[in-house]
Parts: sequence; structure tokens; C-alpha cells
Amino acid sequence: MKDVRSILDQNAYRFDGTAGGQTDELVRRRLETVGPTSVLFYREPLHIVQGQGVWLYDSSGQAYLDVYNNVPSVGHCHPKVVEAVSKQMAQLNVHTRYLHDGIHRYTERLLATMPESLNRMVMTCTGSESNDLALRLVRHWTGREGIIVTEAAYHGNTTAVTEVSPSSLKQREPADHVHVIPISSMPSGSDEAGAWFEEQVRAGIERLDRAGFGCAAVLIDTIFSSDGIFADPEGFLGPAVDLLRDHGGMLIADEVQPGFGRTGNEMWGFARHGLVPDVVTMGKPMGNGYPVAGLVANQQLLELLNAEAGYFNTFGGSQVSVAAATAVLDILEDEGLQDNARVVGGYLKASLKALASRHACIGDIRGAGLFIGVDIVDAESDGQPDAETATRLINELRKNGVLLGAAGRSGNILKVRPPLCFTRENADLFVDRLESALIMV
Amino acid sequence: MKDVRSILDQNAYRFDGTAGGQTDELVRRRLETVGPTSVLFYREPLHIVQGQGVWLYDSSGQAYLDVYNNVPSVGHCHPKVVEAVSKQMAQLNVHTRYLHDGIHRYTERLLATMPESLNRMVMTCTGSESNDLALRLVRHWTGREGIIVTEAAYHGNTTAVTEVSPSSLKQREPADHVHVIPISSMPSGSDEAGAWFEEQVRAGIERLDRAGFGCAAVLIDTIFSSDGIFADPEGFLGPAVDLLRDHGGMLIADEVQPGFGRTGNEMWGFARHGLVPDVVTMGKPMGNGYPVAGLVANQQLLELLNAEAGYFNTFGGSQVSVAAATAVLDILEDEGLQDNARVVGGYLKASLKALASRHACIGDIRGAGLFIGVDIVDAESDGQPDAETATRLINELRKNGVLLGAAGRSGNILKVRPPLCFTRENADLFVDRLESALIMV
Repeated sequence: MKDVRSILDQNAYRFDGTAGGQTDELVRRRLETVGPTSVLFYREPLHIVQGQGVWLYDSSGQAYLDVYNNVPSVGHCHPKVVEAVSKQMAQLNVHTRYLHDGIHRYTERLLATMPESLNRMVMTCTGSESNDLALRLVRHWTGREGIIVTEAAYHGNTTAVTEVSPSSLKQREPADHVHVIPISSMPSGSDEAGAWFEEQVRAGIERLDRAGFGCAAVLIDTIFSSDGIFADPEGFLGPAVDLLRDHGGMLIADEVQPGFGRTGNEMWGFARHGLVPDVVTMGKPMGNGYPVAGLVANQQLLELLNAEAGYFNTFGGSQVSVAAATAVLDILEDEGLQDNARVVGGYLKASLKALASRHACIGDIRGAGLFIGVDIVDAESDGQPDAETATRLINELRKNGVLLGAAGRSGNILKVRPPLCFTRENADLFVDRLESALIMV
Repeated sequence: MKDVRSILDQNAYRFDGTAGGQTDELVRRRLETVGPTSVLFYREPLHIVQGQGVWLYDSSGQAYLDVYNNVPSVGHCHPKVVEAVSKQMAQLNVHTRYLHDGIHRYTERLLATMPESLNRMVMTCTGSESNDLALRLVRHWTGREGIIVTEAAYHGNTTAVTEVSPSSLKQREPADHVHVIPISSMPSGSDEAGAWFEEQVRAGIERLDRAGFGCAAVLIDTIFSSDGIFADPEGFLGPAVDLLRDHGGMLIADEVQPGFGRTGNEMWGFARHGLVPDVVTMGKPMGNGYPVAGLVANQQLLELLNAEAGYFNTFGGSQVSVAAATAVLDILEDEGLQDNARVVGGYLKASLKALASRHACIGDIRGAGLFIGVDIVDAESDGQPDAETATRLINELRKNGVLLGAAGRSGNILKVRPPLCFTRENADLFVDRLESALIMV
């Protein structure tokens, strides 16, 4: 049995029919339709009916400051995305086997944010589809099967991607062709992080070679979202990637979470580390909730795959998906949201550090831009991860109108990841309510 | 080398920079951005800019009767879908880990169209995701790997689903754990079809057992869309499925193409054959172009998977996807589109049969509702499949304002699959233009 604990299991609602009234009724109907895979957040689930900017509202009218959701990255229900989608839906929405201007305009603009070698884009619907295609590309190119990932990584939900998503596996260790880096043991933030990560990749390559799989790729979310956010020092991934390349392996940067300006200084998480990946995948915030995702690679890599098996995606690159994605790029620029992530994220991180100095159960604080991890630890037992307190904090905050989640192998790391239009005032409110919750739990 | 010829390869545009003007410029920008996987329909590609009902319009204002596209099933840009999506997008669009009424209302309604044993629904974004999850479910439940499919089947684009989609594989035969039924050799439409299909499944089970994989499931599109449409006699799949069940195998009905009323008499293709599948997958027309898809199975099957690995889909079941899907169900009912598919489909099939009596290059005509396959054959060589003539017909029709595609192992079967709001007048116009094209080619 694996010992990676899922924060979902800890924070999931357990239906016992005692919540009463409308909540019980909704949960019952849900269990009778959506069924087993339907996990609800919070020990007392939320019935959300409206969203705007950084706010969500429940059926009683209570407002919640959203410090969790990264899909509505330019803000819930941003009117420009709504307008772009509505207008295009009334005009045309078909697949990409007819010519259409929009997809060229979008992909030209998106590719201009990438290193030159990454010169082609495949539009898909979900990050899962993008990561699944990325695995096909690197395996086909290298002729190898092995993939190196981190211990609590989540890269999506297909058969192939679930195999490389240790956080999804409840009862078993990853398969033999998947090598797992125990990133929670990394000397994070120190000068030794680079050498440590390089050694892990070396060990992974050696093991995969010995087992006959070979190492096709390292697949990483460049800010390690599900692992609990490991951002520093900038560039710490460089030595490992150099080593990987020396051994003929490829780098897949999963930018589904760090991408589109969230980390502040750069549009993409890999750029913070000075890396040039072989494949970049993206999704979640790309259409602010409209299902659009993508993969960027070079011409040769896609040509080789295409010679062997065609790839087509019915909804990928449709005129409406492109309209949504274009509106998101427009808003990121017009509202300066990457810069906002840098400035407000820096302010928020400093505020959280000040808070940590007053509360012993806050350990390390890590992150970049508006993606911050806050370790919750047991101060009385040598700073061990304390998922129980993290879960209590999250549920206490929920009662007080703040939505937050957790991450990491032990589920003890608060995942601070609000829409990118988060303001200093929002940051102050969050820190204030977090402090109240810290006093309560 | 496999000998299944892809109609795409035959009908794909080959860029040589000689089309001139705007077309060359658009194709060049496309090749420089979207690149290798970007196949365009037609020997002279179309630049489509607008859609309404059964009509698409190109940049010069030319109208095209759409006899091909099954995604905009209730009609291109249906105002009720546009309104439902626009309204919900401005209200709320988040994941399913908060309670929300809409998903229950939708799934209750959808499940009411299913056999009782199929009592739970997972909402995804694409048919590929649904079929990928279906493979995980049946393999996990049976502990077997083998899957039986048909020779030119297409079930989607993920790693696992591409393996069971022979029509996607350009240079290789399917892997050993995939057994392929040569359905183009079936005595289609005759009383022997059932026994023939049963024998094929028996041979598949035996081969998969001998090879040590076992047979987890038969995965079929119940109208065999990519294989070239094999609809009759109703019920011919029954004996094979009985045999499959006797051997502990499961039935996955891929309803991505036949589902949502297209076959006329029934909401689902499997119902035409009196089958109760173990897993049903759906997609394409479900949101009329909005990326929404789903999987239906029973509680126990999903519970077993969920105990082993969690399944979550970020965009699946979002409020907007449910709004789009709900609008589609409303329109199907309000406009009586399933009945229209039956009536107009029957009329169209009869008209095509009359046409066949005048043109020796038309062979068999098969189908149900608004999903009809028309064999194009070489009358001078004993009725051999004639993909070249089929391709010329498709391109001739395109010049004359009709959009059509082809299917089948040999790419010689015209795939007649218009939006479900197709009228008798549309059918007359199509048959008239098809006859003109038959005279021209």
C-alpha cells in the first residue's frame, strides 16, 4: 500500500444525511446520478450559484473570496470572455478541417511567447489530452517507455496519464516504467536543490535503463503544484535537464498550472528556470473555463508521430475555443495580470511570512507570483507535516467566506492560487481571515 | 504495411502554393503554426466563416448544404444553445466539487433514456476521454487486456484509444491485444449477418485467450460510422453479445456518432439492436459543438475503479457544459428531431435507392435515420470499392455547394450524416446535386 495521502480524501465530504435540508437533497441526487467518482470539497459541501471576479456566491447569498481556483484565471465570468464566446457561437463553431483565420492568429501569438525551437501547436480540449499526446510524442521519438515524475504529481485523467500521476493512485505504487522523485525530501529553496534534483534524475535514468524501459522523458509541472509548490531557487531544474539531455531523454513541461502568467515574472513556469522544453502542455486557465488546451512542440516531433498515426481533435481549435483563448490573452495583456501576479503575489508572500512569524504551525512558505504554498506543521513534533490542521484550517476558512485548498504528499500544504486579478485588498482580507482561522483551530 | 486506406489521405489537400491568393496565404500560416497534424478537407480547401441550421458559408458568401457534420446536430449556431451557454457563462462556470443543481437535472434526464442497469454518469469533455475511461473500467473489472474492434473503427485520440482505432494507424497493424473484425466482409443486411458477427467475436475471444490477454470487451460504434455504416438487420449484434457475456466479456457501446436520436427510431444506436451495454460512451453532438461528453455505466463498475484511482475532470460537468447539453436535449424534444431523423432519413434513403437504380456506380445503400452509407463501386470490375470516384464525387459536390464525406476500410463509402434538422427539401437538393455530380465524374 502506498502512503501518499490524498488531501481529497481528507477534505472530502462524507455523506451521512445529517446536513439537513437542501444540502442533503442535492448530495443524494448527486450520489444517485454522478455517483462514485463525485468527490465534493469540504466537510460541509458548498452550493455555489454565482461567480464574479475573485468572488463566488452560494445559494444563501454568502460571498466567498476565491483563493483556490486557477481555471477562471482572469476572474470568474469575465465579461470579455463571455462576449467573445457568445458572439462566436452565434457565428460559427466547427472543427479545423476547413480553413479559418482565428486559429492562425491565436497560434502565431501563443508561439511567439515560446522559445524558437517550439514552433508548432496542437490544440486540444483538456490538459489530460495534451499530456497524453505529449507522452506519445516523446515515446515515439525516443523509442523508450520510461517516464520520470514527482511523488504527488497530477498530470491528468487518461489511462496513460493516470499512470504518471502518482497522486491519483489510491491503492498501488506507480508501474515499473514510472520513476518517482520524492520531492518532499528536497532541500527546497537552498543552493543544494539543483544538485539534489539532478541526482534524483540520474538515479531514475539508471533504474529505468536497468529495467529495460529507458528514460523517454522527465514530465514535470514546473512549479510542482500538486506536490506542494517548489519554486526556488530559480534555475534549480537546469542541471537535471542537462543530464537528461546527455542521456537522450526529453523534457515535457506541464504548464497547465504554472502557465499563462501565474508565476509573475514570466509567462511560463519553465522560463523561470531558464529551460527550453521539448514539449510544453497547457490547459486549465487557457479559456478561463471554456474547455480549451494545447501542446507545443517542434515540427519534426509532430511529423514523426503524424507519419505513424493521425491525430485529430474534434473540438480542439474550433472557432469558439479560439475565441475564448484569444480573449484570455487579450485580458492578460490589457489588465496587466502577469505583472499583477508578480506584485500582489510578492506582497501576499511577504504578508504570509509575517504571519508565520506569529504562528508556529506555519512552516516553510514557497512560491512565485500568485502561486504560493504554505506548509502547515506540528510545531510540537519537530515540524512534521500536519494535514489534519491544514484540513481544519481549510474548513474554518470556508465557514468564514474564503476558499482554499491543500496539496503535497502529506496533504499539509495550503495551496494559495487565486484568480490573477487578486488585489492587495483581497490579499489583506485573506491573511486576516487565515489568522483568525489559525487562532480558532 | 496495413492496407486500410484512409479517406483522409485521399481527400486531403496537398499544399503546393498554386491555389493562389487568400487560400495559399491561409494554408501557409496554418502549416507554420498548427503544422503536421493539420489535415484540411478537399483538394481545394474551404474557408468557412459562418453557419446556420444546415448551411455553412464561405468567405465569398457561397452557401454549402451540410450533409456531413454531425456535431452541430440540432443545427449550426442554434440560438437556444447560444443563449443557454451565454447566460450560464455570465453566471457561473466552475468544476463539480461544489454542489450545483444543473448537473443532477441533466444526468437524471439522460439516465432516464438508458436501460435501468446503466445508472451512473461521468461527465467528460470529449468522446476520446469517455472511451479512454471505458477501457479503464472494463479492464479493471475483468482483469483482462484484450479488446475487439472493427477494422476501420475510430474511437478517439488518446494513447489507449488510438490503440483500438485501426483507422488512425497509418503504418502498422493494431497491437496484439487488439482483435480486429473485418466488417467490410460481412453479409450486411442479410439474415446471416448475426451469425457472421458472432463467429468473428468467437474467433476474437479465442485468439485473445490463446495470447494470454483475455477478452475484456467488444468496443463498437453501434452503427459502424467509420467502417462505412452497417445498420441492418436490427438486432444482428445480439448473438455476438450473448456469446461475449458467456465468456465474461463486456460490451462498450460507443454512441459518439449514432447517439442522441440520429438513427431515428431510438435515442441510442444500441437500442436498435435490443442490447444492454455495460458501458455507454457519448460525445460529439451532446453540446452541439460545446466540448461536453459522457460515460454511462453502473455504480459497481465505477466504485471499483474509484477504489483504485480517483477520476476527476476539470471541465467535465461544469455549469456551462451542462447548460449546453441541456439545451440540446430540449431542442431534440421541442423540435422532434429524432422523429425528423426517422422520417426525413427514410425519405432520403428511398431517394438514394431510386438514384442507385439509375447509376451503376452506386452499390449498396445502408443506414438508419439520418446516417446513411452509400457504396461507390466500380461497375465494370464486379462492384469493387471505388474510392477514387467517391473522392471525385465529394470534391465535385463541394464545388456545387454540398458538403459530404466518406468512410470505410477502402474509403469508398459516402457518409451521409447531416444535422438532424435536415428537411425533405434539403434531401431533394442533395440527391439532385449528387446526381449532377455522378454525371460529371
